[in-house]
Amino acid sequence: MKPINLPEKLRKFSEYWHPHQIAVVNDMQVLLAKVKGEFVWHQHDEEDELFQVVKGTLFIQFEDRTEEVKEGELIVVPKGVKHCPMTRNNEEVHIMLFEKLSIQHTGNTESALRVEEYPKI
Amino acid sequence: MKPINLPEKLRKFSEYWHPHQIAVVNDMQVLLAKVKGEFVWHQHDEEDELFQVVKGTLFIQFEDRTEEVKEGELIVVPKGVKHCPMTRNNEEVHIMLFEKLSIQHTGNTESALRVEEYPKI
Repeated sequence: MKPINLPEKLRKFSEYWHPHQIAVVNDMQVLLAKVKGEFVWHQHDEEDELFQVVKGTLFIQFEDRTEEVKEGELIVVPKGVKHCPMTRNNEEVHIMLFEKLSIQHTGNTESALRVEEYPKI
Repeated sequence: MKPINLPEKLRKFSEYWHPHQIAVVNDMQVLLAKVKGEFVWHQHDEEDELFQVVKGTLFIQFEDRTEEVKEGELIVVPKGVKHCPMTRNNEEVHIMLFEKLSIQHTGNTESALRVEEYPKI
């Protein structure tokens, strides 16, 4: 029950596409991630996922279009929707994610980027 | 599945202590609120609640202390914990809340400030 400072938490790790858990709210978790380049195409069959951009501009590719999510904006990807987050111009982007505790990082897609358990910081 | 811009949403209302729903993620909702002065003491017996400060400084009074939550910080109030949010120096503070869809605004406390249904914007 202490305030959580995002810049302070962000200083604790540097790996890209590797979410770190900063809080749990009911059966959902708050994650911070640094991302750069392209992730992998995947979907979560049972879980919606919220992306909030803390720094930079995130692009989320959907099958029919790409959405641009700027600093201070957020977007919800509903369950079952195939998506692939990415950044452009080699930009390092910082994002906060709100997800079910039950979620799998890359959904049903196998990937070398997959994180099985999110570190708690 | 469109980006949600917080300043744009915040321009849509002006009432204090009146959360507006901007998104739903699984069985939780994202709310925006403008607050000023003191709310009411209450607790949510079954729901944790996350406060993220978008602008200004929020103070959350607990029974044994008060926590200061600055812009860009967040805090989780666990279920069952009595609390009363407030601002100081007559400051208007903007907050984002992550709460269960089932939550009651003022928990088990009756209040003229209680909102029964959050407007969707």
